Amino acid sequence: MTSKKLVNTVAGCADEALAGLVACNPSLQLLHGHRVALRSDLDSLKGQVALLSGGGSGHEPAHAGFIGKGMLTGVIAGAVFTSPAVGSILAAIRAVAQAGTVGTLLIVKNYTGDRLNFGLAREQARAEGIPVEMVVIGDDSAFTVLKKAGRRGLCGTVLIHKVAGALAEAGVGLEEITNRVSAVAKAMGTLGVSLSSCSIPGSRPTFELSPDEVELGLGIHGEAGVRRVKMASANEIVTLMLDHMTASANVSRVPVQSGSSVVLMVNNLGGLSFLELGIIADAAVRTLEGRGVKIARALVGTFMSALEMPGISLTLLLVDEPLLKLIDAETTASAWPNVAKVSVTGRKRSRAAPAEPLEAPVSPVAGGLTSKRVMLVLERVCTTLLGLEEHLNALDRASGDGDCGTTHSRAARAIQGWLKEGPPPASPAQLLSKLSLLLLEKMGGSSGALYGLFLTAAAQPLKAKTDLPAWCAAMDAGLEAMQKYGKAAPGDRTMLDSLWAAGQELQAWKSPGANLFQVLTKAVQSAEAAAEATKNMEAGAGRASYISSARLDQPDPGAVAAAAVLRAILEALQGQGV
Amino acid sequence: MTSKKLVNTVAGCADEALAGLVACNPSLQLLHGHRVALRSDLDSLKGQVALLSGGGSGHEPAHAGFIGKGMLTGVIAGAVFTSPAVGSILAAIRAVAQAGTVGTLLIVKNYTGDRLNFGLAREQARAEGIPVEMVVIGDDSAFTVLKKAGRRGLCGTVLIHKVAGALAEAGVGLEEITNRVSAVAKAMGTLGVSLSSCSIPGSRPTFELSPDEVELGLGIHGEAGVRRVKMASANEIVTLMLDHMTASANVSRVPVQSGSSVVLMVNNLGGLSFLELGIIADAAVRTLEGRGVKIARALVGTFMSALEMPGISLTLLLVDEPLLKLIDAETTASAWPNVAKVSVTGRKRSRAAPAEPLEAPVSPVAGGLTSKRVMLVLERVCTTLLGLEEHLNALDRASGDGDCGTTHSRAARAIQGWLKEGPPPASPAQLLSKLSLLLLEKMGGSSGALYGLFLTAAAQPLKAKTDLPAWCAAMDAGLEAMQKYGKAAPGDRTMLDSLWAAGQELQAWKSPGANLFQVLTKAVQSAEAAAEATKNMEAGAGRASYISSARLDQPDPGAVAAAAVLRAILEALQGQGV
Repeated sequence: MTSKKLVNTVAGCADEALAGLVACNPSLQLLHGHRVALRSDLDSLKGQVALLSGGGSGHEPAHAGFIGKGMLTGVIAGAVFTSPAVGSILAAIRAVAQAGTVGTLLIVKNYTGDRLNFGLAREQARAEGIPVEMVVIGDDSAFTVLKKAGRRGLCGTVLIHKVAGALAEAGVGLEEITNRVSAVAKAMGTLGVSLSSCSIPGSRPTFELSPDEVELGLGIHGEAGVRRVKMASANEIVTLMLDHMTASANVSRVPVQSGSSVVLMVNNLGGLSFLELGIIADAAVRTLEGRGVKIARALVGTFMSALEMPGISLTLLLVDEPLLKLIDAETTASAWPNVAKVSVTGRKRSRAAPAEPLEAPVSPVAGGLTSKRVMLVLERVCTTLLGLEEHLNALDRASGDGDCGTTHSRAARAIQGWLKEGPPPASPAQLLSKLSLLLLEKMGGSSGALYGLFLTAAAQPLKAKTDLPAWCAAMDAGLEAMQKYGKAAPGDRTMLDSLWAAGQELQAWKSPGANLFQVLTKAVQSAEAAAEATKNMEAGAGRASYISSARLDQPDPGAVAAAAVLRAILEALQGQGV
Repeated sequence: MTSKKLVNTVAGCADEALAGLVACNPSLQLLHGHRVALRSDLDSLKGQVALLSGGGSGHEPAHAGFIGKGMLTGVIAGAVFTSPAVGSILAAIRAVAQAGTVGTLLIVKNYTGDRLNFGLAREQARAEGIPVEMVVIGDDSAFTVLKKAGRRGLCGTVLIHKVAGALAEAGVGLEEITNRVSAVAKAMGTLGVSLSSCSIPGSRPTFELSPDEVELGLGIHGEAGVRRVKMASANEIVTLMLDHMTASANVSRVPVQSGSSVVLMVNNLGGLSFLELGIIADAAVRTLEGRGVKIARALVGTFMSALEMPGISLTLLLVDEPLLKLIDAETTASAWPNVAKVSVTGRKRSRAAPAEPLEAPVSPVAGGLTSKRVMLVLERVCTTLLGLEEHLNALDRASGDGDCGTTHSRAARAIQGWLKEGPPPASPAQLLSKLSLLLLEKMGGSSGALYGLFLTAAAQPLKAKTDLPAWCAAMDAGLEAMQKYGKAAPGDRTMLDSLWAAGQELQAWKSPGANLFQVLTKAVQSAEAAAEATKNMEAGAGRASYISSARLDQPDPGAVAAAAVLRAILEALQGQGV
C-alpha cells in the first residue's frame, strides 16, 4: 500500500511543487527547460557574487523558499530525495554568470550525489571560464565516531544561506564569502528526532517504528537514524538530543557549553503539529539556558523538511556579534521568518497582570430592596432549580446530552454557597454583576456563559437608576447580549424563548404608574407559555444545529428552567410583599 | 490507543506551546497568570487601537505568530481546541487599555464558545468603561445551505488580522476599523480538505477515513467535513474545492468569478508535506487563472492549522487596490511571510535558458594521435568492459547491489553508439570533455558522476598542451577532482585505488625524455596490483560506509574495472605502434 498524497503524478511532483512556489512568489522565475528557480531581478545583481544551492526535492521550503535579496540567488531541485541534474546546475551557473554576477558560490549539503553533481557542474563551468566555488555543509551531529563520508548536510545549511546571502548583498567577494561561510559551517550542529517515518510519493514509508519508540539522529531523506529510543516526554527528548549533540565523546559535536552564544533553530521535519514544535522550543530554551548557554536568536518553523516526517531537528550555531549581524540582515526570502533583532536570553518574558479596576461605587438601591430580600429571592430560585434537576435532565436526554438539570443545579448550589459567605449586595447592578461572575465560574458550559452575558449586560442600565423602566431596560440589554453573542433568536428552541416572551411583557414597566406585580405576573405566564411552545420548534442555534433538525416533542429544558426562575422570583417577591 | 506526541503532559500543552513561542520571540511577552501573549512594546502603542484575537490552541502559528507591529497586539489562548477563559480575555483587554491604547477590537472566529467568552469579556470590559468592539469572522464556504450558527471562522481570519493591523498601525479609530474589517470579512471564502484526521494530545484521531477517501469542508477542530469524496489527483481536488466555494448555489460562497481580483491563501492544515502544498498551490493558480481570476497576491504556508491534520485549506479574498495596500503593509509578525508586492497573475514566470558557450577552438593534437587511433583505443576499452560484465557484477554482489558490471557495460555501449555517429575528436581536451558528458548522461549512478568529474577535470590541462607532462597533469587533476567531490581517499576500496596507483607512476612523464610505454606499462601494473589489494580493505566511502564495515575477501569491482580500462588503453596504443 503506497501512501496517500495530494499529487497529480509521482513523476511530476518535483516540477509542480517548484512551479507552485514560483507561481505564488513573483520574486522568483523558473529557468526554461530546467528545474531551476532564480531571482526574477537577476539583472540587478551585476557585480555581486551569486549564491546557488539546492538538492533533492522533498525538503520544502528549502531550498526555493530561501531565494531572495539577502539570501540565495537561485536553486536547482532534483526529483524527490534525488540529486539534481548536472546540466541544470550548469544552466543555473551560466544564467547567473550571463546576468553579470562576478562569480558563483555553490552551497551544497554533504550527500554523495549532491557533492558529485554540483562538483561536476562546477568543473564544467570553470572550464568555461566562470569563477565558481563550492562549500559542502555537514552539520549533522548524529554520528559519534568519524565517518569517512563526513557529516551530513541538514537544516543548518539554511543558516549558511543566510550568512552567505548577507555577505553577497554587502558586496563581499567570492573568495572571502567562501572562506567565511566555511568557517561558520564548522561551528554548527544539528540533530533530528522523529515519531515515525515519511514516504516518497508512490512508495511506502521508509522505516517502521513501534508506537512507543522514537528515532534519533535521522537524516532528511527518510533514512533511519543512529538510535531508536523509548518514547519519552518532550523535556527528556530535548535533553537527550542536546546531550548527544554537545557530548565531548561525539566527534561530530557542536562545542556548545556554559557561556556560549548560539543561534537556535527548532525545525519541523514536516508533519509535526506546531503545538508540539512550540513545546519543544520551550524545552530547548529552558534546557540550554539551564546549562548557561546564551541564546542570541531562536528560529522556530519549517525550514528543512523531510516530506511529512513528524519530527523535529535542533540546530545550534555558535555566534559572535559580527556573525549575528549577518543573521539579522534584511532578506526578502519568503521562508525566512521575521526574527526580532534582540537576544532571546536575558529579557523579561512576562509582564505583570493588569490592575483590577476599583470596586464600582455602590449604586442606588430600589425602594425596599434589601440584602435580606435579595437573599430570600435567590434562595427560592435555587430551591426551584434543585427541585427541577431530574425533570430538566430528562427533557435534555430527549434532545441533547442530558445534563441541563445538572448544570442548573450546579448553578443553584454555587449561589447557595455564595449566600452563606455573607449577605448579597442590595444594589441591583452589583448583584447582577456578582451573579454573572459566579455563574461564569461555577455553572460552566454555554448556559453559564449565556447567563453570565445576560447578567453582565443587564447590570449596566441599573447602575444609574433602579426604577421599573430601568429594570425593563436591564431585561432588554440582557436579551440583546444573549442574542448577539449566542446567535439565537426567538423561535430557536432555547432559553431565549422564555426570556424574550417575558421581556415583551415587561415593556409595560416603561409606562408611568405601571404595576410591578401585574406586569411581572403576565411576564411569567408569557414565559411559561413560550417554554411550552418550544416543543414544536426545531433546534436553530448551538452546535447541535449543525448536525440535525429532528423534530422533537418535548419542550426545551433551558426554556423551562428560565421560566421557572422567573416564577420563583415573582413568588418570592410576592411572599415578601415588596 | 492514543496518538504519539512530543509533549510533556496533556494538561500542559497549551501553556508550554505558547511559552515556547514567546521565549523564542523577544517581541512577545506573556501576561502573568494568564495564557495571554502581548507585544512586548505595548507601552509604545499609546493612542492606537489595540487588536486582540485568539481562541483554542492547536491552530499554531495562529494566533500568537501573528502578533507584531502591523498585526495583532495580543492573543488569548485556550486549551487545545477549547475557547479561552473569560478572565484571561478580560485581563488582556485591561492590559492593553492600561498601556494607553484608545480602544480594543476583538477579532473572533465564529465558534459558539469563542463568541460567548469573548462577548462576555467585552461586556465586562465595557462595564469598566473600556471601549471594546468585536468582529466575528465566518469565512467557511463548506455549508451550501444557511446554518443558523453561521459560517465558521477559519484561515481567512489571518487576513483580517493583517488588514486590521495595518489600519491600527496607521492610526485609524476603533469604529472605522470595526466597520472596515466587517466589510472585508464578508468578501472571503475558505474551504478545507484533508487526507486524514488529527488527534488532540491524549486522545485518538477524531474521525477515520479509508485509504481511498478524502474529507471535504472541514473545520479546524478535527471535526468531520461536509462531504467525503474519493481520492483524486491534486488538480481534480483543487477544481472540486474551487467549484464548491464559488458555486452560485452555495449560500456561503465567495463571489469570485472571471475578472475578480483575489488574494489566495494556500494553508497547510498541519501535517501535509510542503511538497504537496506546492503542488496544490500550482494547481490553484492554474485553475483560478484558467477561469479568468486575477491573483493579486498568493500566500503559501502554515497559517491556521488543526494540529497535525494532513490537509490544506484554500482561502480567497476579493480585493481592490486600497485593500491590497493593507495586505502589503509592513509587519513584524513572525508567521506572516515575506510577500512580494507584485501581482501573481500577469507576470513572466520563467526566463530563457542561458546561451550555451561557443564551442572551444580545437586544441592541439598530440603527435600521431588521430580520430582513427582514438576510435581503436575506445573500441578496445568497450570490448574489455563488456567482457567483464558478469565478473564485475559477481564481485559487486559480494559487497554492494550487484550492478557494477551492468553500469560499466551501459557505459561501453553508450561509447560504441557514439562512435557510430561519427569520428571522435582527436583533440584530447575535446575528447575527454565529450566522454565526460556521455558518461554523465548514459552511465548513471555515482560511477558515471565520478568518471564524468575525472574526465572534466582531466580535460583542462590538455587544452594548452598535449605532451606527456600535460597528460600527467591531466591524471592529477582528474584524481584531485574525484577525491574532492567523491570524498574517497586511496585505501577506501574504490576505483580511486587503481587510478591513484597509476597516477603515482605517471609522475615519471614529467621528466624530460620519459618513455610513453615504459611508464604507462608500469602504471597499468601498479593499478592492477592496487585493484587486487582492495580485497583487504574496508569500505570507506559512499553511502554503504555509513552502515557497515564488514571485511570482504573480494577486490572492489570499481577498482578492477578502472585497472582493466587502463590496460585496454595501453594494449590498444601498443597495437597501433604509437
